[in-house]
Parts: sequence; structure tokens; C-alpha cells
Amino acid sequence: MSKYAAPLTDMRFALYDVLGADALFARLPGGDAATRDVVDAVLDEAARFAQTVLAPLNQAGDAEGCHFADGVVTTPKGFKEAYAQFVDGGWAALNAPEQYGGQHMPETLGAPIKEMLDSANLSWANFPLLSHGASEALKQHGEEWQREVFLKPIVSGRWTGTMCLTEPHCGTDLGLLKTKAEPAADGTVRITGTKIFITAGEHDLTENIVHLVLARLPDAPAGTKGISLFIVPKFKVSRDGVMGDRNALACGSIEHKMGIKASATCVMNFDGAEGYLIGQPNKGLNAMFTMMNTARIAVGYQGLALTERAYQNSLAYARDRLQMRALTGPKRPDKPADPLIVHPDIRRMLLTQKAFAEGGRVLGYYAATLVDVIERSEDAAERRKADELLGFITPIVKALLTEAAQETTYCAVQIFGGHGYIAEWGMEQFARDARITTIYEGTTQIQALDLLGRKIMQLQGAGLRHFVEEISGFCHAQQANANVIEFIKPLAELTQEWIGLTQEIGKKAMGNADEMGAAAVDYLFYAGYISLAYFWARSVVAADASAHPAEFKDSKRLTARFFYSRILPRTRGHLAAIRAGADSLMAMPDALFG
Amino acid sequence: MSKYAAPLTDMRFALYDVLGADALFARLPGGDAATRDVVDAVLDEAARFAQTVLAPLNQAGDAEGCHFADGVVTTPKGFKEAYAQFVDGGWAALNAPEQYGGQHMPETLGAPIKEMLDSANLSWANFPLLSHGASEALKQHGEEWQREVFLKPIVSGRWTGTMCLTEPHCGTDLGLLKTKAEPAADGTVRITGTKIFITAGEHDLTENIVHLVLARLPDAPAGTKGISLFIVPKFKVSRDGVMGDRNALACGSIEHKMGIKASATCVMNFDGAEGYLIGQPNKGLNAMFTMMNTARIAVGYQGLALTERAYQNSLAYARDRLQMRALTGPKRPDKPADPLIVHPDIRRMLLTQKAFAEGGRVLGYYAATLVDVIERSEDAAERRKADELLGFITPIVKALLTEAAQETTYCAVQIFGGHGYIAEWGMEQFARDARITTIYEGTTQIQALDLLGRKIMQLQGAGLRHFVEEISGFCHAQQANANVIEFIKPLAELTQEWIGLTQEIGKKAMGNADEMGAAAVDYLFYAGYISLAYFWARSVVAADASAHPAEFKDSKRLTARFFYSRILPRTRGHLAAIRAGADSLMAMPDALFG
Repeated sequence: MSKYAAPLTDMRFALYDVLGADALFARLPGGDAATRDVVDAVLDEAARFAQTVLAPLNQAGDAEGCHFADGVVTTPKGFKEAYAQFVDGGWAALNAPEQYGGQHMPETLGAPIKEMLDSANLSWANFPLLSHGASEALKQHGEEWQREVFLKPIVSGRWTGTMCLTEPHCGTDLGLLKTKAEPAADGTVRITGTKIFITAGEHDLTENIVHLVLARLPDAPAGTKGISLFIVPKFKVSRDGVMGDRNALACGSIEHKMGIKASATCVMNFDGAEGYLIGQPNKGLNAMFTMMNTARIAVGYQGLALTERAYQNSLAYARDRLQMRALTGPKRPDKPADPLIVHPDIRRMLLTQKAFAEGGRVLGYYAATLVDVIERSEDAAERRKADELLGFITPIVKALLTEAAQETTYCAVQIFGGHGYIAEWGMEQFARDARITTIYEGTTQIQALDLLGRKIMQLQGAGLRHFVEEISGFCHAQQANANVIEFIKPLAELTQEWIGLTQEIGKKAMGNADEMGAAAVDYLFYAGYISLAYFWARSVVAADASAHPAEFKDSKRLTARFFYSRILPRTRGHLAAIRAGADSLMAMPDALFG
Repeated sequence: MSKYAAPLTDMRFALYDVLGADALFARLPGGDAATRDVVDAVLDEAARFAQTVLAPLNQAGDAEGCHFADGVVTTPKGFKEAYAQFVDGGWAALNAPEQYGGQHMPETLGAPIKEMLDSANLSWANFPLLSHGASEALKQHGEEWQREVFLKPIVSGRWTGTMCLTEPHCGTDLGLLKTKAEPAADGTVRITGTKIFITAGEHDLTENIVHLVLARLPDAPAGTKGISLFIVPKFKVSRDGVMGDRNALACGSIEHKMGIKASATCVMNFDGAEGYLIGQPNKGLNAMFTMMNTARIAVGYQGLALTERAYQNSLAYARDRLQMRALTGPKRPDKPADPLIVHPDIRRMLLTQKAFAEGGRVLGYYAATLVDVIERSEDAAERRKADELLGFITPIVKALLTEAAQETTYCAVQIFGGHGYIAEWGMEQFARDARITTIYEGTTQIQALDLLGRKIMQLQGAGLRHFVEEISGFCHAQQANANVIEFIKPLAELTQEWIGLTQEIGKKAMGNADEMGAAAVDYLFYAGYISLAYFWARSVVAADASAHPAEFKDSKRLTARFFYSRILPRTRGHLAAIRAGADSLMAMPDALFG
């Protein structure tokens, strides 16, 4: 049975000491309710819920999975009760605006809570997660009556939401979608089509489910410019909020997946289902994109959450399991063998996990602070800058933290040896659960194209410029700090190299767009590792300046040193791969692949 | 449903054109029966068996798994019939000596056959695989009557064998094992203890199972010097070969694993079971080690096999699935979107798979040629050199090909996108099956310590010296060949760097053994990538000199170019990580990990 204890000390360190979230909340309109006392109390309570209610259901939920029969999805034992507690505790309403029944707490507070739920039980956490996207769409694009009727029950948690995008023949390429919306005489529309991979498309946790569905109106232009967004509830709801008959939609089956087996991944068949247009006709994709940053960051947190839990269990096992003697002679002569943690490569794997967990936490929460600035700041210039930064950092948060989770859960299985491969010990579940995170909400490939192609090349790199300025400012401010010069010097050099490399790719890509595509994934890792190096240097500075004990400060410094000396050099391989250019990938004629 | 077609053309290219296996067979005693005609016919027949009998059982076997009830293990539907065909076809006897009923074909011919079985159905292939280890132990350490009684039925395939090493408290650290062997008055012993992770420990494929069990005789020295090896059959067998009653041993349960679900991984309880000592008392570990090179190379082939199958399916999907337009404009304007293969990063993943499959094939088969030289050459110096080379290359074959399988099956899931995560498409099974290969028969960590600590440092690097001389000789011979100078130059430079790096680590490790342990895994990858670079350069030379069509030669050259420009630079990151030294891992006090 795998363990989980919320890393509250490190979460608070990331929030307060590194990112100054308490000061940020205090100065943002409506943020003054989120005092440090309140935030601490909320975190404690979330930890209790995650540890005692959700974590114990994780392994059993994986073993049981969701059940499907005759269109009905039954969640594993305990899921429904846990969801009821979640709603009773007011968790669903934490970040939503007060006018719709929410508590309007900052998104930055939502980040560690999200992390805890995901660490405790990723499959379960996917049920409320999808409501967040639906909430955002309703909040930003819904008419007032739509918010009253649909947003309020979602905010309270009485209903959940979905995002119905993918169809059998189109995942990434939404321009190909075929689902139809026929206007009816009463002002509603009739939706017909099949959607796949719909997380929480059907379940037994709530009395209604609000589907947000992408579909085409009659005579809509072809491709992505002819897609509209619709609200399609499982049970029909009138404009005055009265719930009526079952709508003409049904779950056709659930997928048998590698992991997140307790999360219902549904095929949804819409058969003339009654719905309402939300936002402008043919602007559905724009509405979807506004939700996407948040959803992508949320998946990044899933990666972080699995890394954290993999680390906790790996560390406990490495301390407990006795196997072989240390290379330098017995460390525990009183025992039949030394604990695994004496072995250098076990430590390399543990430090890899720790570096990605703690560094990734700062990176992930940093993105949330930008969301709060965008949503709350009264300074338009500050909002705009935060928006550009968020657009830039989002694909890095999403892809780097989920790719890191592949590596850290690999390490967990490896540290447990044969036991890592056995279900009962729990490590292989983390690896299976993690595997979806580099795929859904846009694959790593899509994140890389979004970063390099869109955020840097199309948008002239405003976000990158801000971020590089921020790093340079930090390096400048710390250049006389002898305690961190070991980090500042390589960080400043790498940042310069990064700027140069970006220009280099930009020039090549002007002549050949494949140069961008061929560089994109290596560039994402390259940029991601440098970003983590920045947050690790900040963490050391913040730890030194904090009231934490000396051991805490040493732990941060030594982990940062590990990151700089053993992870950051991976940028050398990525740099060389990028410089190899598009020819290395495009020269092979398709027929010669095999 | 995933596909598999044995890559016979590339297998023959690796065997004949690159490695000159036909010439080797012709000059080795007893190898002249393995003419090219015979080898080709055997490969064709193995391909037919793998494709038509085993491959169709792979996905269903994974879904069904092995069944366990009251000590009885039932294999999935079709497994028993497939095993009967395997025995009828004479496959079990292919490599064994003629005096025990075998066909004594070269090990190098066994390599592609093993690859095909593993590609087709890894779980199934694990049942006959373990017989190979038992055969080797009996062949090399058994008394004549033991070979008559136990080896012959294993060679024929009527019985299978196991290797019973691991106990609940000891996997890698066999010195800790507790299973007891009590001599009985009749010259047999009584074995008592519990063994775990016993592949094919119990099943319904054969009438008897021969367990080779590590245990301690009374008054045996503590640790690894007090371990003996015993033959313990499921049904008792007398010295004259008569099968008797059920022995006092039973399967207590089977493990629920991440993958290879149709392979029975058993807890075996020995309760005073009757057995026979094999080899010298207290020398059991030595006997085990003689089997280990072969078993480790065999697991390396499992990695290769999954890489090959992952590649075939990824390529087919990338050609078939239409999604988005090429960055440089539509390539198939007649279709609603372009096939995935137009996208640079999809090609990067496909080429990664292809480079590891084809390069890994040459590396893997190269090891098999060494086994044949060791077993058959009449030249003692040649045998000794091959033995040193084999000892050196074995951990690279095992670890690099299995780690590559993690990456290539990751790529397969990623290329399939959401469908990669769904059982029905088959990619996620490859990823789950692959995950055990970096663990069993010694984790990657153990391989790395074996390579750097034992094969290089303890044995003064004889194997490395031979290998580096071989590469240097190749580079020297090709230095005037303008067609391959693009590969020869970096290969020669890297080889020099490799020698220097090895000396550098050696010096540091003399003062501190942790320096070896801290470098080992990065060193293994570093050495592995350079080894593959060597085999890729050889492949280009061999292709150019062959009668293959121009397209084949171009395909080899372009894949080699991809490997050199986009995979080989990973050595830069590993080099820097190695040079960071032990401090980067050991400086953190255990208490500060968290």
C-alpha cells in the first residue's frame, strides 16, 4: 500500500518564501481574504481530506475501475461518498466568483490543493477537474441566464462539467470535427454526433452533468473557423433552471485504459440532444482556447503530484529495504545489509525525483500567480505582461512536469526493483497513471509547437522576453551574493545561450517551417531545464533568507547543486540535436522508413 | 489489434552483411550444418510460427492473464497448443548439443529466433526462455546422470526449467538468502523455503517442471560463499529417470503485475522438497553466474523485440492517421489532412525507434557471435578474447536495449496519442511489458556496476580494450572511405574520449569507491551510445558493400546520420554528469532527503 503525506512545508515554502504569494494576495483586489492564516488553515484541511479520504481509495479504485452497463457508469466503491464530502467541504466552490456561490480564493491557493488531490487519487480528481474547464467557459462566454442556470450548480459541486472535443477521426486536429448542431424553433439546438475520450462524460456522483460540446452549425465554414460551442446537459434544463427529462445523449462505452482506471473515459453519443449555443457562433474554438491554459497547467500539476508521491514512496523504501553493502564498506554493520539509500545510483534517482518535485512545484505555482494577476490586477500593463508570461510558461509547465513524471515514476519502479512491477506495492500504478499526462490536453509535441511556433515565433516572443528579463534581473541582483554564485554564473550564461539559440532557430525557420517543427521538442526540454534552473536558484536564495532551519536550507542547496551538475547538462544534448536541423528528420523519404 | 511481421531482411542483413555470421559458422567446428540455405529456411519457419501462432495470442493473453487456483496455474487460451507446436517443431532443441537430443545450431541463429518469439508474444516466450538457463546449468555443472534424466526432457521441450533465486527479503543481494537444504540418508536433499518472482514456476504446458534452486546446506558459510544449487523437480524423478509422486513444493500464488500478464510469476513454497545437489557444494552462485550472461543477453533481446514491434505499429499508424497539415503546406491536398508522418517530431520518434531497432539488432547479435566463438572455437586465445568481450558487452546489451525499449514504447504510445493509452490498440501493452526488462536478470543499476565496477575496474578492462581496438581498427580501415568519413571522424574522437574518461573515473575511484558507483549508470549509457554508433557506422559500410538495393543503402545511411546527429549528442549530458563526481550524489545527508 503506497503512502501519501501532503508536503505542506515545501508547499508553503514555494508559496510564501519563493513566490511571495501572501504579499501578492494582499495587494490584489479581493485577495485580502486570503491571509496567511486562512491559507494555512485551508491547506491543512485539504491535506486532511486528501490523505484520509482520497488516498485510501486510490489503489482499490485502480483495481476495481469504473463499471459500465446499459449506458450507466458506476464509479468504484467510496468515490461517491468522497465526492459528497468534497462538495460538503465547499472545495468545488473555492476559486469561483462569489456571485455564483464561490469563495473567490486565489488560483494560487488552488494550485497546492489541486496537487494534493492529484497526489492522493488522480483518477478521482479528474471528476471535479473537468468542472473547472466548464466553469471557465460559462464564466467567460456564457449569457447571464446560462451562468445562473448552469454555472451555479457546477460551482456548488451539485453538477459536474465536461469538455467534449475529440471525435474518432480527430484529436489534435479539431478542424476535422463533424458533430452537427441544428437550430430548433424554440431557440435551442439539436446536437448529433459522437465524441470520444470524454473524461467524466457519465458517472454516478451527481444528479446532472453539463457537457460543453464543440459542433458545427449548418452552413458553418469548413475547418476550425466553423466550430461553435454548446451547452448540452445530461438532463434537460429550462432557461429558468428547472431540470426536466433525460436528454437525447448517452454514454456508449468506457475505454479500457493503461491507467487512471477509476476515471471514466467515455464515448458519448449525441442523438439530437437539446443544447444552447454559448458565446458567438463559429467562435467555439476561441472559447475553448481560453480554457486551455488552465486545463494544461492543471495537467502539469498532475505530473507534479505523481512525482511527489513517487518520491515519498521511493524514499521510504530506499531507507527501509536492506540490500547489499555500500561500496565504501558497511554503513549499518548491525544489519544484514545496508539500506538502499547508501547506493549512489539510488541516490541519483531519489535526487532526480526530489529536484523535479520541489523545482517543479515552484514552476507550477508560479504559473498560478500569473493567473491571479491576470484575473485581479487593476493595472492593465501588469495584466498584459502576466498574460504573455502565462502563455509562454504554460506549455513548459504542462510538458516538462508531465515528462518529468514519466522519469520519476520510472525511478520509483526501478528503486522498488521487482516489487515495483507488482500491483500491490503501488509504484506501477503511478507509472501507468502518469502515462496519460503527456497526451491529454495536448501532447508534448503540441505543447512544443505551441511554445516555439506560436508563443515565440508568431507572437514575437513577448513572453520569453519577459521571462528572460526576469531571470537576468534575478542574476543581476544576486551577482554579489557569494552563497549562490555557483548557480548564478551558469544560469546567466545559459540564459544568454537560450536567447541566441532562439534567434538562430527563428532565422532558419523563416526559410523552412520544418526547422521550427524539428527543433520544437528538444527546444521545449532545453527551455524547461533552464526554467527549472532559474527556480532552483531562486529557491536557494529564498531558503537562505527564510526562517527555515539550517537543514532545510542545506537540503535546498544540495538539491540545487545536484540539479545543476547532473540534470542541467542534458541541455547539451538537446542543443546539439536542435542544431542538427530539420534535415536530420526530413531527409529520409517516407518510403524508406521500412 | 497490433501488427507484427518478422523483419527478416534486416535480420539477414545484420547476420550476414554486418556480422559475417555465415562465414563464422562455416569455420567453427560443428557449424558447417548451418549453411545460409539452412539458416534462411529456419528463419522463415520461425517467422511463420511467430506471426501466425504466437502473435495472435499476445493481446488476448494480456487481457486474460494467467489463472491461479489451489496451487494450479492455467495459462491463457491457446498458450498450451502453441507450446505443443513449438515442441513439435523442434524449436526447444535448436541450440542444445546433439548428445542430449539437440540440433546444436549456433547461438547466433538462436538470436533472431528469440527476437521473433519475443516480438510476437513476450509473455509466452518467457515459458521456454527459462528452460534455457536450466539447460545451461545442467550442461555445464550437472553429473552425467543428471543430464540424462533432466536435461534431455528439457531439450526436447517435454519439461521446462526455472531459476529459483529471489526470496522476499533478497533480490539483488543473494547473500541474504535463507532457503535450506538438508541432506537425507538416500543422498538427496530436502529443500525448505520460499522463493518469489519465479517465472514459469508453475503452469499447465508440460508434465513436469525442473526447478534450479539456490539454497544453503547445513553449516554453510554465511553470505554468498555458502550458497549451493539444487535440482528440485515438480514431480519426483529417480536417478534412472522414472517420474514419481508430486514433490513437496507448490505455487502459493501468482503476482498481479504491470505487464507480461500472461507470464506466470510465481511464489514457490518448498516444504522439504526432494532435490539433488548440482555442481560443488557452496559454489552455487558461480554456477548461477555462468548462466547469467546468456540470460541477460536474452532479456536484452526482449527489449530489442519490443522496440521492433513498437516501431512497426508506430510507422503504420503514422502513415495511416490523418491529422493536421504539414508545417510547409499540405502534402496530401486530396485528403482532409496530412498523415502524421509529415510532422517533424513524429519522424524524430519514428527514427529513434528505427535507430534503436536496427542498431540494437547488430549489437545484440554481435554478442551471440561471441557466444559461438566461446563455445566452438578451437583457438584458446580466440575463445578467451571472445569471453572477455562478451563479459564486457553483456551489461551494455542488457541495459541499453531494455532502456531503449522504455523510450521506443513511450514513442509508440505518444505517436498513437489518446489511442496509445487504450488497451484495444496494443501500444500500452508494449510499454507495460517493456517495463520489466530493465529490472529482471539484474536492474540497469546492477548492469552498470557490472560493467564499470567488475568488467572494467576489477578485470582491468580487458573486454573494453578489445572492443576499443576493434573500433579503432575499423576506423583505421575506413579512414580513406569518403562515403563514411562523416561517421568515422566523430566515432574515432569519441572512442579516444571514452578511453580517457574511463581512466579518469578509474583514478578517482581508487580513492573513493563511490566515484565508481556515482558514474556507473551515466557511464553505461555513454558507452552504450558509442557502441551503437560503432555498429551504425559498420552497418553503413556493410550496406554499401552489399547487394541490397539503393533504397536500402540510403535508409541505413540516413538512419545512421539521424543517430549521430540527434541521439549520440546525449553523450554530452552523460559526460558532464559523470564528471560531476560522487559529491553530487553523496553530499546530501540521508536525513535531508525529506
